[in-house]
Amino acid sequence: MSILVTLEGIEGTGKSTLIQNLAIMLRDKDIGVTITREPGGSPQAEKIRQLVLKKGSENLDPLAELLLMYAARAQHIAETILPALNTGHIVLCDRYFDASHAYQGFGRSMSRNILQDLDKHVVKKCIPDLTLWLDAPIELCLERTKVRENRDRFDQESIEFFTRVQKGYAQLAEDNPQRITMLDAMLSKDDLLDKAYAHIITCYKSKK
Amino acid sequence: MSILVTLEGIEGTGKSTLIQNLAIMLRDKDIGVTITREPGGSPQAEKIRQLVLKKGSENLDPLAELLLMYAARAQHIAETILPALNTGHIVLCDRYFDASHAYQGFGRSMSRNILQDLDKHVVKKCIPDLTLWLDAPIELCLERTKVRENRDRFDQESIEFFTRVQKGYAQLAEDNPQRITMLDAMLSKDDLLDKAYAHIITCYKSKK
Repeated sequence: MSILVTLEGIEGTGKSTLIQNLAIMLRDKDIGVTITREPGGSPQAEKIRQLVLKKGSENLDPLAELLLMYAARAQHIAETILPALNTGHIVLCDRYFDASHAYQGFGRSMSRNILQDLDKHVVKKCIPDLTLWLDAPIELCLERTKVRENRDRFDQESIEFFTRVQKGYAQLAEDNPQRITMLDAMLSKDDLLDKAYAHIITCYKSKK
Repeated sequence: MSILVTLEGIEGTGKSTLIQNLAIMLRDKDIGVTITREPGGSPQAEKIRQLVLKKGSENLDPLAELLLMYAARAQHIAETILPALNTGHIVLCDRYFDASHAYQGFGRSMSRNILQDLDKHVVKKCIPDLTLWLDAPIELCLERTKVRENRDRFDQESIEFFTRVQKGYAQLAEDNPQRITMLDAMLSKDDLLDKAYAHIITCYKSKK
């Protein structure tokens, strides 16, 4: 049995490290794992990612940005997620459609209406079985991302923007309690890993 | 008063030449004209065009392709069409949303439902005042495009694909008789220009 697990949260919450460690633990139990990410996650979708994230794309209209994100998502689902699920893998995806709601919906004030229409056409056949939302104080996350090389267009948004995104994630978690689980990203690396792993295994076993 | 005029038809119908000549005639009458095209028509939208059209993008999922077209369209409307209309220009656009219905809808069998949802969110505020559909026998058009350099991914589609696209345009013209006017692309260059010019001027005067 395969499951789709998405990890959400603003930059600097430690999603990437957590995903790598989760994959090691799951593979130790002989469970097949595919790690992927959005925007991107497949050759064509990574090209779309470049259009959205790289500097020089500041003039991108918010509606165009949202549609690019969903174009990349459609490609990612077709080229990576569905094939991986069909091989029986647990798919661990670093950001997915909740990120569009949090960043473009709450962050950039795109209407719920268009997001729901896009979800209906693009995501409906591929809803996550479990979403782990890593929550941490914004100031700390921004402090962590400051030292990174290759900061993208989103990393340079204002603290007000990230506050709206963070509130968005909280609202999404409240609206989808069955699917979205909040994890405290301030836990020690080991405690966070153990908790995340436990949630994934519970979900995985429930689908068997 | 400004109007948006779109020109539609498969490759090889002579749209580009016609648009250039229309602009010369209109500017001779001291009417401001903006020439643009889709996909593309603005710096960011042209980058999206590259993703969709260039060779190497054969693995693009049809849904992703459609969303990329509408992302480019949203950007084009925001960055080029609306500003040009706001300066009082006649905007002459080489392909627009009818092309998505003809190519992705009829050509690639994408559902009317998603096209209508995308139109609602992206095109609704910017419907053409007049659409000139250049109709010509497919075999002749394909013959003309064969000699071109830089043929793109669509130029290399099958005759069956273009037959569906052509039928799509005919259906769209039937469904939108007020907006879409069919022109016989087999007319002499001068006759075609005169007819197209007359339709544009009639539309332009009716909006004054």
